[in-house]
Amino acid sequence: MVKRYLSLISLNQAVRLTCTSFEKPGRSVKIPVIHSSGRVAATPVYAKYSVPEVNLAAMDGFAVRSRDTVGASDQSPVMIKDFVQVNTGNIVPPEFDAVIMIEDTWKKQDNLQIRKSVSLWQHIRPAGEDVREGQLVLPEGHRIRPFDIGALATYGIVDIDAREVNVGLIPTGSELVHLGIRPAPGQVVESNTIMAQVFLGEMGANCTRYPIARDTPEVIEDSLCKAAIENDLVLISAGSSAGSRDYTAEVIESAGELLFHGVAMKPGKPAILGKINGKPVIGLPGYPLAAQTVLREFAGPLLQSWGLPAPLYHTFRVQLSGSLVSDLGFDEFIPVSVGHVGNTYYAIPHSRGSGIQMATVKANGFVHIPAFTEGCDSDTKMDAVLTTDPGNIERTLLLSGAYDPALDELAHLVRNKGIFMQVRSAGNVGAVLSLRHNSCHAAPLSLPDFSFLPDCREIMQLLPLSDLRFVHIATTSLGIASREGYTIDDSINIRFINRQKGTSARMIFDSILKSKGIDKAQIDGYGHEVETHRSVADAIRNGFADAGICTSGVAEESGLLFIPLVGEQFELAIRTDLLKEPNISALVSTIQSDSFIACLAQKGGYNLLQTGLIRCLSEDLLIKEYISIESATIPL
Amino acid sequence: MVKRYLSLISLNQAVRLTCTSFEKPGRSVKIPVIHSSGRVAATPVYAKYSVPEVNLAAMDGFAVRSRDTVGASDQSPVMIKDFVQVNTGNIVPPEFDAVIMIEDTWKKQDNLQIRKSVSLWQHIRPAGEDVREGQLVLPEGHRIRPFDIGALATYGIVDIDAREVNVGLIPTGSELVHLGIRPAPGQVVESNTIMAQVFLGEMGANCTRYPIARDTPEVIEDSLCKAAIENDLVLISAGSSAGSRDYTAEVIESAGELLFHGVAMKPGKPAILGKINGKPVIGLPGYPLAAQTVLREFAGPLLQSWGLPAPLYHTFRVQLSGSLVSDLGFDEFIPVSVGHVGNTYYAIPHSRGSGIQMATVKANGFVHIPAFTEGCDSDTKMDAVLTTDPGNIERTLLLSGAYDPALDELAHLVRNKGIFMQVRSAGNVGAVLSLRHNSCHAAPLSLPDFSFLPDCREIMQLLPLSDLRFVHIATTSLGIASREGYTIDDSINIRFINRQKGTSARMIFDSILKSKGIDKAQIDGYGHEVETHRSVADAIRNGFADAGICTSGVAEESGLLFIPLVGEQFELAIRTDLLKEPNISALVSTIQSDSFIACLAQKGGYNLLQTGLIRCLSEDLLIKEYISIESATIPL
Repeated sequence: MVKRYLSLISLNQAVRLTCTSFEKPGRSVKIPVIHSSGRVAATPVYAKYSVPEVNLAAMDGFAVRSRDTVGASDQSPVMIKDFVQVNTGNIVPPEFDAVIMIEDTWKKQDNLQIRKSVSLWQHIRPAGEDVREGQLVLPEGHRIRPFDIGALATYGIVDIDAREVNVGLIPTGSELVHLGIRPAPGQVVESNTIMAQVFLGEMGANCTRYPIARDTPEVIEDSLCKAAIENDLVLISAGSSAGSRDYTAEVIESAGELLFHGVAMKPGKPAILGKINGKPVIGLPGYPLAAQTVLREFAGPLLQSWGLPAPLYHTFRVQLSGSLVSDLGFDEFIPVSVGHVGNTYYAIPHSRGSGIQMATVKANGFVHIPAFTEGCDSDTKMDAVLTTDPGNIERTLLLSGAYDPALDELAHLVRNKGIFMQVRSAGNVGAVLSLRHNSCHAAPLSLPDFSFLPDCREIMQLLPLSDLRFVHIATTSLGIASREGYTIDDSINIRFINRQKGTSARMIFDSILKSKGIDKAQIDGYGHEVETHRSVADAIRNGFADAGICTSGVAEESGLLFIPLVGEQFELAIRTDLLKEPNISALVSTIQSDSFIACLAQKGGYNLLQTGLIRCLSEDLLIKEYISIESATIPL
Repeated sequence: MVKRYLSLISLNQAVRLTCTSFEKPGRSVKIPVIHSSGRVAATPVYAKYSVPEVNLAAMDGFAVRSRDTVGASDQSPVMIKDFVQVNTGNIVPPEFDAVIMIEDTWKKQDNLQIRKSVSLWQHIRPAGEDVREGQLVLPEGHRIRPFDIGALATYGIVDIDAREVNVGLIPTGSELVHLGIRPAPGQVVESNTIMAQVFLGEMGANCTRYPIARDTPEVIEDSLCKAAIENDLVLISAGSSAGSRDYTAEVIESAGELLFHGVAMKPGKPAILGKINGKPVIGLPGYPLAAQTVLREFAGPLLQSWGLPAPLYHTFRVQLSGSLVSDLGFDEFIPVSVGHVGNTYYAIPHSRGSGIQMATVKANGFVHIPAFTEGCDSDTKMDAVLTTDPGNIERTLLLSGAYDPALDELAHLVRNKGIFMQVRSAGNVGAVLSLRHNSCHAAPLSLPDFSFLPDCREIMQLLPLSDLRFVHIATTSLGIASREGYTIDDSINIRFINRQKGTSARMIFDSILKSKGIDKAQIDGYGHEVETHRSVADAIRNGFADAGICTSGVAEESGLLFIPLVGEQFELAIRTDLLKEPNISALVSTIQSDSFIACLAQKGGYNLLQTGLIRCLSEDLLIKEYISIESATIPL
């Protein structure tokens, strides 16, 4: 019952096999020219008639013979006897070869006096100026743009023979429900074929979604064989499972030929390529990000090799905002958010979980870590492929540091000003590193009461304090979150969830245990470390633990009870020279706005008395009196 | 009756007025998520439920409690009593917090033996891992991408509230006919509103095309007022005329307010902005390229200021392949073809005639010459906005030099190999300059019999001959084209069309006239100079002249009779180091292909005996024996 991929082939090899193992279908469809934008001409398009078809006046005036005007000047005006009045767009009779503008003429009885000679073709649109009858307008393979359609219409082209590929999309999985039906726990909305239909449809594929094939080999085989007759390409999507009920590969093998199963890439390792009835069958993994990779890296290039247009992507040279771990031997695709800080484009990587679709929704691009690379340092330069308008990059603010849900509210509010705020949750240490490397626009810091946690202030000593301003977001607190309202005294009787060493939550926990004389070994779950405040709340919410230390905002957001232990200042550190940049100044004024304060007040758990104050901290002040400082507002 | 624009306002001023004089309509429409790609969310979108909603197994195996596995190793296996078998995607019961892969377990009676401890959440997708119920999925203003639609479907979002603007499009002009009707001479297919519908539709505008309003003020006013009630924005397109029947501005003034009429830009000078019923009314000039400019520079930015997405354009830093004349005080937009030669992106400008739609069809971008510039030198660097996939630029070959219709056939054939060939008709002098500046991939040269025209060979002496190879396209000839079969002896009795000084056609004409003792002054039309062989043929075809000198290919193409005067070699000069580049090697092998030779043979007028031969010419050979040289094929 245990299944393993027999062998993984490389991404390059897999793409080559996909693009070279099948015959080009060469299908086309006639579509009205008005609906042809983005489509590719399957045959050359020729003009049906010349435009203009006859010589036309390009101005209001008189059609004349240019040779009759030779020598005309103010001193010796010439009288023209043979002429005809024309308006712009009127036909110029064949005997005339120029038009004189009405304001350059004087009528003398039936004659026209002119004082300037005119050149051949003056103010005339000669027949065929734009296009001639039978002239090639679009070569085969031309991707039609909106303004091409204007020309095609002018030239009398009503329909376009456009390249098309018929693609059959088969969803499989007993846990799937159709969009519109509320999935029960353990069920999933069938979305992979919807995504495939939109993605491939934009390339000019004509997609048919087949009924959901439940997880039995017979049903899947019937559906596959039917689809392979009716289409040029078949995509079969697993449910979100890739486990014991995954019959796709064996069904393909029984109905046709299995070309590969398993590619050395992430996400998308379970990708499948087969051939049934001579047609390519691509197996999409069930996990959405894996399915995206297979759509983008295999189905897209296959359709391109068949003459459909590539999706338009911009590429930016970026530097990672932190180091990245990656497996040697695996091509890896990682969603990122790119922003422009100083002279460098930085990319913040998002979660790589192949089930986490929010990562691609939040990201504005992705990076590709090639198989021969084992991890990337933060100074590695690489290409990021953008999935948004590149103009958005200049309106993207990168924040790197401590996380609090207040940042989500802030992101939402600045979005209304056209600014995209992307937060990398990297803790106070990440904030300090990003500020030192100048790899973020602003760094959120969670500064606990240093009198209570003297170790925490060490990190502050690494900051270039004189160049920084601190915008106060809110005063919040660290405390014990639980569903039952536990206090620290309950900790030996319940399952705890802990944070890693070096975090203020861990320091507080250790310091309180010590002061109460409680042995760490007595705490069930002391060794269960998670990386963020939110993970603590999630563990409690999902029943994996009973209590843990996190911020009031995170506890609130997860609907947990909260017993405060120590106050925290949530601050946004910004380099002084960046404060005047329009995007950052918009960010700061949003923090200072009534609507932001109202948002946080509604969420609860925040003290907002000093929100929006901009402080300049000296190291001395910081260490001695951080918490009690009377802040001064510094004008921007 | 004479009409003038009262005053032109600047492009900047006009755009500002357009984007700031009207209220944002804030309209939205509910559309099925599957059709929402490219649309912009009008309201924030929140997740309807958490994904996953409960903790799920991410692997096939057994759900266990991680604390029960502490200390397990090969030396001291641990027996687990409390567990449950799960497949990938199954619900993990709340009492368990990890999944062990089936291959890491050994069944011992009813117990499970394990030899490795597991960490909290191992192989579990915790509830809410992807998204939590109520979490913001898309902020207002998010432009929806294909992969976003996958996420939206997964999160149970069936419909999207998308931003929309209702746009009314009114065509005016008595000479207009609907697409599908063959226009009579002097009539034009109404294509501007079709183009506007496609262009604005891709931004998310809901366009309604109104019936063609014939050129009377009453009809136009009725249509405008109706459209201004029914829409958020009205575009009124003139016919191709901009003359005495142009009532648009006065109708707007009578029905509402005229904000501007006439913008200092080309094309598009007659642009109009007005306000009727509080709604913006934009007047599109009738000429298609002028209409494009107004759509792109005014209607687009207005819709953007209302929250619709900008069209996605790539920008490339380019150098012009030649100098450009432009008017000081006018912002000018010029269609160009961009290609990559050496380390530089060069842009070849296309025709600027505002009625020549083929220029935008052929172009892959455009440049904007700002109003404060008076002409651009060929070394000026500027931004070209691309209208195609930027990947096409690397597959674009720029040719600059003498023109012959054989190049159109060649372009068509290499297009089948995925290569875009763009030809700048610049004559032999242009060819020489481009080769010297290395600003083209290849330069077509028309080399006449130097024994007959010794002056012509001077140009060849400017070529870096030792670095060049000449690919023979065809042997053709210069001669007299006419509808009646005239010879040089008829020239004093007919209307002639001439070429500029320095062209070989002009030299031949002068030399023959001299040898025959004919006085130039006797030739009707001797002073009528045009710039290309094609213009000569056009003048004859359109009845402006009776005869002129051009190449056999051009005469053939225009259906004219042709009397040869002198042989010409049509050669493609290519720098030796470029011959190995894949695109150029594909170009050369296309010239050598049977299908190219068959194409030219079918057109007629070409001697194809040496087509495809690659020659290396020494200056000495060239001057003494160019025509008689026995060519040697040089291997690539």
